[in-house]
Amino acid sequence: MNKPVEECNVGIVGLGLMGGAIAHALRNRCGVLQERLFSCDMNGETLSYAQKEGVIGRGWEAGRAGEMLSSCDLVFLCLNPSAALNFIDKWESAFKPGSIVTDIAGTKARIAEAAEKFREDADFIPGHPMAGAEKSGFANCGLCDFCGKNYILTPLPRNKRENLEFLKQLILRMGFGRITEVSPAEHDRKIAFTSQLCHVIASALIDCEADTAITRFGGGSFEDLTRIAMLNVPMWTELFIENRTALLQRIDQFEESLGALKNLIDGAQAAELEKRLAVVRERRAAM
Amino acid sequence: MNKPVEECNVGIVGLGLMGGAIAHALRNRCGVLQERLFSCDMNGETLSYAQKEGVIGRGWEAGRAGEMLSSCDLVFLCLNPSAALNFIDKWESAFKPGSIVTDIAGTKARIAEAAEKFREDADFIPGHPMAGAEKSGFANCGLCDFCGKNYILTPLPRNKRENLEFLKQLILRMGFGRITEVSPAEHDRKIAFTSQLCHVIASALIDCEADTAITRFGGGSFEDLTRIAMLNVPMWTELFIENRTALLQRIDQFEESLGALKNLIDGAQAAELEKRLAVVRERRAAM
Repeated sequence: MNKPVEECNVGIVGLGLMGGAIAHALRNRCGVLQERLFSCDMNGETLSYAQKEGVIGRGWEAGRAGEMLSSCDLVFLCLNPSAALNFIDKWESAFKPGSIVTDIAGTKARIAEAAEKFREDADFIPGHPMAGAEKSGFANCGLCDFCGKNYILTPLPRNKRENLEFLKQLILRMGFGRITEVSPAEHDRKIAFTSQLCHVIASALIDCEADTAITRFGGGSFEDLTRIAMLNVPMWTELFIENRTALLQRIDQFEESLGALKNLIDGAQAAELEKRLAVVRERRAAM
Repeated sequence: MNKPVEECNVGIVGLGLMGGAIAHALRNRCGVLQERLFSCDMNGETLSYAQKEGVIGRGWEAGRAGEMLSSCDLVFLCLNPSAALNFIDKWESAFKPGSIVTDIAGTKARIAEAAEKFREDADFIPGHPMAGAEKSGFANCGLCDFCGKNYILTPLPRNKRENLEFLKQLILRMGFGRITEVSPAEHDRKIAFTSQLCHVIASALIDCEADTAITRFGGGSFEDLTRIAMLNVPMWTELFIENRTALLQRIDQFEESLGALKNLIDGAQAAELEKRLAVVRERRAAM
């Protein structure tokens, strides 16, 4: 990108929780002017609301996304993986020549494949902001805090060095604390553990206890472990299934560790259990 | 108790994280005077420090606990379950006639049994404050926040109504938000789920990943799920083994739910998975 972001037209495709949070960060932290910030979304009311709130300058209904794309120097695709793939498929020809495109999807293999095959005159750099909230939608985007959070990028060999640098600077200005660059496959393996496995575990914990009054016996740990069970169901269903090869391996590993601890407890093997928990304690403290 | 707590001598047995947090709450929120707040502990330095800090009026080394107990109207046993049982066994005769005794142990079956057989002229009401921190010891007791937290009591038929009332009022003044009274067996079954199972899961999660740099891929959920893996190893080893019958049942239930989700993911059964996750989401939101 040969101009500062303040002089760019920026498009947000999908003004949900993450799209909304990115829009706010661009406006409030990165100097993007309202009249240069655009969005397209299936929900016209969301667009009107965001415009009235001074966040975006103009909104396009989903069917007219092409009009928006043709004027955008930078586009954030803030959609679930499958919707992002469909969007690219449908609107590829509409993107502005020379534009930078990035996405936020929680699995990267198929997105990176699509980015690899994307138009040569636009630069698609796949990404994953590691932030979220227990509620979804634009109205809740204030709950999605970027401050100090991780952001993963899975750049492709074809991405231009200066565009990658431009995006990284912007990500830091948005408030993120650390950017990690890895391959899409590495991203998917790591995320299967830190994100998807954790959501499966939280869901399984709630799944196995129907009594909602159990919270009378909560001391903080139960609440912390299950907060993310209030998940965006369609999105997480998609992420779990999309990344199932890596996720199933991680579930197996977890089951193995859980089984080992269970056996030590069952056998009342205090010394062995203490030894194993001491390693766990040290490791977590080092993280 | 026929006098207000402000006129009681209160003894804290074990000035660790919880003993320290209770001592602070008694001093700062309940009007207990320094000269009326006593403690015995194995660590003489902790006692001196707590006295110098204006928390306790006097400290007794563990071997001279009897001297302290004989003057205390109210005693908090702030020890691990086995240490509490040993303490009662050794010092039962030293407690002041008419005194109220309570404890904080995370499993209640054996403590309640001991309380049942306790001297008839003292009133032992077993309890469990549902609070804690990732660090242990008196020096960290500021991290152990009682505000709005749950407190479980497992009163015995022999406990005097007015003493139970006295203790409950005091617990609320200490800052706790909700007191639940249940049988020791019920406590142990519920706590196996909300507390012990969560600590086993957090430990298993850390156990199955040796790479501490994995936190570069954390988005909050991994951090939330594993914070409690920084556990007080001897205490939790004891709690897991002490309550293993209930805990193993809960681990089995959890493994079953996890296995069911795993199968749906493995089979890419999106509709079924969405249905199950939607129930989870609603249930957690209702908690």
